[in-house]
Amino acid sequence: MRIAAFIAHPDYAALFFGGTLVKHARRGDEAFVVAMSPGEVGAAFKHPDKSLDELAAIKTRELEATARVQGVKEARVLRFPDTRIANTPELRTAIIDLIREFKPDIVITHWPQDGHPDIRETAQAVIDACFFAYLPAIKTTYPAHQVKKLYAFGETAASDHFDPDIFIDISDVIDVKIEAARCNEAMVQEISELFSKGDPDPNSWANIFLGPNMHWGQEAGVKYAEPFKELRIHGLGKRALQALPI
Amino acid sequence: MRIAAFIAHPDYAALFFGGTLVKHARRGDEAFVVAMSPGEVGAAFKHPDKSLDELAAIKTRELEATARVQGVKEARVLRFPDTRIANTPELRTAIIDLIREFKPDIVITHWPQDGHPDIRETAQAVIDACFFAYLPAIKTTYPAHQVKKLYAFGETAASDHFDPDIFIDISDVIDVKIEAARCNEAMVQEISELFSKGDPDPNSWANIFLGPNMHWGQEAGVKYAEPFKELRIHGLGKRALQALPI
Amino acid sequence: MRIAAFIAHPDYAALFFGGTLVKHARRGDEAFVVAMSPGEVGAAFKHPDKSLDELAAIKTRELEATARVQGVKEARVLRFPDTRIANTPELRTAIIDLIREFKPDIVITHWPQDGHPDIRETAQAVIDACFFAYLPAIKTTYPAHQVKKLYAFGETAASDHFDPDIFIDISDVIDVKIEAARCNEAMVQEISELFSKGDPDPNSWANIFLGPNMHWGQEAGVKYAEPFKELRIHGLGKRALQALPI
Amino acid sequence: MRIAAFIAHPDYAALFFGGTLVKHARRGDEAFVVAMSPGEVGAAFKHPDKSLDELAAIKTRELEATARVQGVKEARVLRFPDTRIANTPELRTAIIDLIREFKPDIVITHWPQDGHPDIRETAQAVIDACFFAYLPAIKTTYPAHQVKKLYAFGETAASDHFDPDIFIDISDVIDVKIEAARCNEAMVQEISELFSKGDPDPNSWANIFLGPNMHWGQEAGVKYAEPFKELRIHGLGKRALQALPI
Amino acid sequence: MRIAAFIAHPDYAALFFGGTLVKHARRGDEAFVVAMSPGEVGAAFKHPDKSLDELAAIKTRELEATARVQGVKEARVLRFPDTRIANTPELRTAIIDLIREFKPDIVITHWPQDGHPDIRETAQAVIDACFFAYLPAIKTTYPAHQVKKLYAFGETAASDHFDPDIFIDISDVIDVKIEAARCNEAMVQEISELFSKGDPDPNSWANIFLGPNMHWGQEAGVKYAEPFKELRIHGLGKRALQALPI
Amino acid sequence: MRIAAFIAHPDYAALFFGGTLVKHARRGDEAFVVAMSPGEVGAAFKHPDKSLDELAAIKTRELEATARVQGVKEARVLRFPDTRIANTPELRTAIIDLIREFKPDIVITHWPQDGHPDIRETAQAVIDACFFAYLPAIKTTYPAHQVKKLYAFGETAASDHFDPDIFIDISDVIDVKIEAARCNEAMVQEISELFSKGDPDPNSWANIFLGPNMHWGQEAGVKYAEPFKELRIHGLGKRALQALPI
Repeated sequence: MRIAAFIAHPDYAALFFGGTLVKHARRGDEAFVVAMSPGEVGAAFKHPDKSLDELAAIKTRELEATARVQGVKEARVLRFPDTRIANTPELRTAIIDLIREFKPDIVITHWPQDGHPDIRETAQAVIDACFFAYLPAIKTTYPAHQVKKLYAFGETAASDHFDPDIFIDISDVIDVKIEAARCNEAMVQEISELFSKGDPDPNSWANIFLGPNMHWGQEAGVKYAEPFKELRIHGLGKRALQALPI
Repeated sequence: MRIAAFIAHPDYAALFFGGTLVKHARRGDEAFVVAMSPGEVGAAFKHPDKSLDELAAIKTRELEATARVQGVKEARVLRFPDTRIANTPELRTAIIDLIREFKPDIVITHWPQDGHPDIRETAQAVIDACFFAYLPAIKTTYPAHQVKKLYAFGETAASDHFDPDIFIDISDVIDVKIEAARCNEAMVQEISELFSKGDPDPNSWANIFLGPNMHWGQEAGVKYAEPFKELRIHGLGKRALQALPI
Repeated sequence: MRIAAFIAHPDYAALFFGGTLVKHARRGDEAFVVAMSPGEVGAAFKHPDKSLDELAAIKTRELEATARVQGVKEARVLRFPDTRIANTPELRTAIIDLIREFKPDIVITHWPQDGHPDIRETAQAVIDACFFAYLPAIKTTYPAHQVKKLYAFGETAASDHFDPDIFIDISDVIDVKIEAARCNEAMVQEISELFSKGDPDPNSWANIFLGPNMHWGQEAGVKYAEPFKELRIHGLGKRALQALPI
Repeated sequence: MRIAAFIAHPDYAALFFGGTLVKHARRGDEAFVVAMSPGEVGAAFKHPDKSLDELAAIKTRELEATARVQGVKEARVLRFPDTRIANTPELRTAIIDLIREFKPDIVITHWPQDGHPDIRETAQAVIDACFFAYLPAIKTTYPAHQVKKLYAFGETAASDHFDPDIFIDISDVIDVKIEAARCNEAMVQEISELFSKGDPDPNSWANIFLGPNMHWGQEAGVKYAEPFKELRIHGLGKRALQALPI
Repeated sequence: MRIAAFIAHPDYAALFFGGTLVKHARRGDEAFVVAMSPGEVGAAFKHPDKSLDELAAIKTRELEATARVQGVKEARVLRFPDTRIANTPELRTAIIDLIREFKPDIVITHWPQDGHPDIRETAQAVIDACFFAYLPAIKTTYPAHQVKKLYAFGETAASDHFDPDIFIDISDVIDVKIEAARCNEAMVQEISELFSKGDPDPNSWANIFLGPNMHWGQEAGVKYAEPFKELRIHGLGKRALQALPI
Repeated sequence: MRIAAFIAHPDYAALFFGGTLVKHARRGDEAFVVAMSPGEVGAAFKHPDKSLDELAAIKTRELEATARVQGVKEARVLRFPDTRIANTPELRTAIIDLIREFKPDIVITHWPQDGHPDIRETAQAVIDACFFAYLPAIKTTYPAHQVKKLYAFGETAASDHFDPDIFIDISDVIDVKIEAARCNEAMVQEISELFSKGDPDPNSWANIFLGPNMHWGQEAGVKYAEPFKELRIHGLGKRALQALPI
């Protein structure tokens, strides 16, 4: 099975669905992660000493390192302009072509109701691209491909009306999720500063960072879980079943 | 597998989820249908010549006949007061005990946001009873039983905010659904009068009666479908999965 | 009375509000239908053998033929780019000018919450254009015109939160709706393949195709109905009445 | 035409739909107003010196006086227990029988999502009673009667999700609305104290009291308007039209 | 300042707003907690060996012990019937009188949209009672009292549409919250079994148990937070301010 | 304290939050108002005799005069194209730079769900700009600045789902609000024509114009109030409190 995640900026791959990527990689699935932008403008907030180009390079390397630990087959960082990502034909075409190149059964993206314009626009572009990718008359480098399922992952503070209906049990890969997250130095440092100060336990940042996974885990009856919500791909009918599922 | 439907009045079993009952019966599942009331007060609207007791007897026989055609193992009609059904401890206790007697994996009931008080109250009582049925300290005739899934079926005109997420393909049993519906004489007559007058085709009532199934079928990419929406059973956590489903 | 429909692609005029167009034409109303794009990219999915230009020509002729059967006075197909329609000043200006040319009392368009970007963008452009069309300082070819009512028609699978409040009884023109729909060969073939296979009745495609109209008809107490929902035109106050309507 | 309003306590008839009653009375319509309770428990908050029985008598007289000024044919005050009104079979039976006695074409009641339990319960009982009143097998003093339309009026602070779709222009009867409201001494005094203190204009209480009518008037393009929202009567299909309304 | 919490069953006081109670107690506020029922029927699920009376006694002692650790001034457990709590006049009267006895400025209760009937009914009874408690004509043991603010606390799995707007930073009292929670043996054991098995850290149950507080803490920029949402008390106007708050 | 309002067209500053501006000015706060466009295209509807440039100049002078009466420190009118305002990087950059120039603690804008495209786009651009203004890597003329609170003001007819939670008591500055509104000649004339005709009182336009303020005042227990609703600034966590607020 093949799975591809399209996100606005690199950090989200470790934070919000990193455990799920590990789970799929361990099953032998081929996973791909693409960030639309290195997120260097946002990163500069915490690193005023570094140039935007340096930050873009760091963020790109960090996503690649994260992916290696997670078992993700390939991670890419595009250079759409951070803080100015828009659901234009150009963005959609790029995503359509990546979908056709990676041929995923499942696509993962942001929940589209979000306070960050880059996230809103990326999510909508991915939703639209999943439909357009199987129209052969839209010509790109690779031939048309039909995605079977599209899921939004959940974030914390900025998502509105995110009411997940699918929970992936990541309890058995939680250590790998943490190890992969550690590849994102700035993020680890930020979490440590914000939430863990004064805590003698060097791992306390990870405990805190996993709070949402514990919370969702309680909803799902397991130790740690990552939440998802299915999004509809236009033109792909709701699937009819032959019996009510238990 | 075992499946039990709890409804306010008998007619709904033919109209709204009759095809799904046939599908399950054909798989070898044991199905049960229980109406809280014969619906004799509503039935008297079209049959002012008959007494309420006669109507109750007719409606009860019709549900039993419907069930036989559908392959439903057992149909019962309780005598809670038509137009005055209320989610009281008595009603809940009756449903709890029936759940424990039939031991269903799946329970089906009305969508609770409805304009008919009997339907609202029945649906809420069933939702509550699915939770209470597995608390052993609530003593009834039969021992505690845990229902695994609870689904609401969809009606037409009176349901608010019913947005189904599960569609059962009933295309291959549509004839049995119609034949079972034919057991409900008053309903057939009412549909014929309302919608088919002047139509020379003696089967036109059935075409019309299947309109919603055709409509939902189009949503689901099949010829005929019945729509359902999962309801949450309190205390039963959302289930965690080991991977995103395709 | 004058009525104008603005839609993203041609097929919708037969499927979703074709009966209503016939009803208005029979009353002597002048009806106009404009598609923003021939929808050739979507059409190529089923017709990989034909060029996009051929498909555009076919779709345009089919809309014109449909309109003739429906009694629609004029149908036009614009050439905004299929799958890339956007609510730009250019699109809005085109619609504003068409509103001013046709001078409709009533405008019909898509429900704006839809999974197809072309539909979302067209619907919003029409909503905006109904407001802008009566601002004389926005200069186009024709003088300012005030639309009195704006309605969204309902589709099937892709519309979210469409809760219609107006139902047009099309029972007496259902044959004309079907005859007009027959002008759209690809659509007829697609419906036949999807839903009617194995059915000996050569008209079964139409029965299936009318499923939603039967469904909505049941809501409205008639045999066949098409559903609509009023949209607000900015600057046009809600109308005050002198008494509560019966 | 006949119109009947069922409300929890007397004051609402002057405040929230008094102008509409005057408009209908002036057209020659027969109007009826019934309060479920005198509202004496609430009234005692401002009048600790009076007994509950005195307050019940005062409130009853005030509603009768209000009705006379409004041209309402008959006003009644039932004695269901203030602050303990519940949607019981008894309450529903009382309303069913009043509907059958007054034979209204139109029924008016509260919007059911309200912070006062008496209002919630009264509104739901009226919604249910409009359905039950035309079932002949539910026996009360008077024969079955079918209400054609049911409207909720709008209040101010306590209603949730009230989004009116009908506005009655009461500009030409605003003086009568004020005069009728003046019959409710406690309410006038309360409004004067709360909002008008220090204002030299003796009529300022009425200006303030009419604020919502001015506000809704602006929505509807008239000087003063009262807002309503149609509620669905179970079993009464949405009405099909022969053409889209202008 | 005085604060009173009214809950369906005892456990919630430790789990969902225990830290907030500690914070208020440390400020010198007088806090009161009342459970409507000991929750013995639910407790019997995990303790089939104990009688309902034993369980009621245990649960009552545990709430009292929890309260002592939290610094709560008084905890009471009423004997309304577990799994059959209903928003009756009797329940409301009990809560009204407790409000009048404790004279709280702030009342805390459940969010009313919940899958457990006891919670739904308790929450609605508390909302109603906050209004009724200041109507002097409703006579109970103690004189009328006006509650100033009413807040719903948040639970995990069973609450619908809970979108908190207030977050209490409990980072500095997290140890006390855990210590108080430890008084509830069955709950600790249940959490340990469900979520912590195999974890060598004896405190891991508490880490898991605090997952939601970490999650909400991230939303609010602190280490641990408990979420609340203000509910409207009928008759208490929204408060007007003299300037926009920073 | 510093406060800045960003609106699509000038009139809104007098109508919808004029009293609040006066209140803040009287406290000694520095207030700024910026309109994205003079709104000359809309204004031409009522003034077909004047050129768009004349109208732009008039509207600009009127906003400046309004601001002087209100005590607003500075009012500016930008020249983004009326009826074609769009949330482009250019518009956002302009607003970001104005936020950084004025350094407001509080920003005010439209509620984003509105029927006028200019209002929708302006509101969303302001929401985005409040986030981007404190990212130092987004370079504009002035250095980064962090807005503390963002509020939407309420309009009348065109806003959807505006459910205010903050009410500013403007009773003591109502005369100044009216005097400032009088600076907008066209608006005064329009209101007078629409709502006050035939009314001998020369001030009746103002009474009508204040209807919404009376209505919201009743919600908030004061004579006149202006309503607001807080909007979330991305990246600014919900604030944690140390105790529940009374």
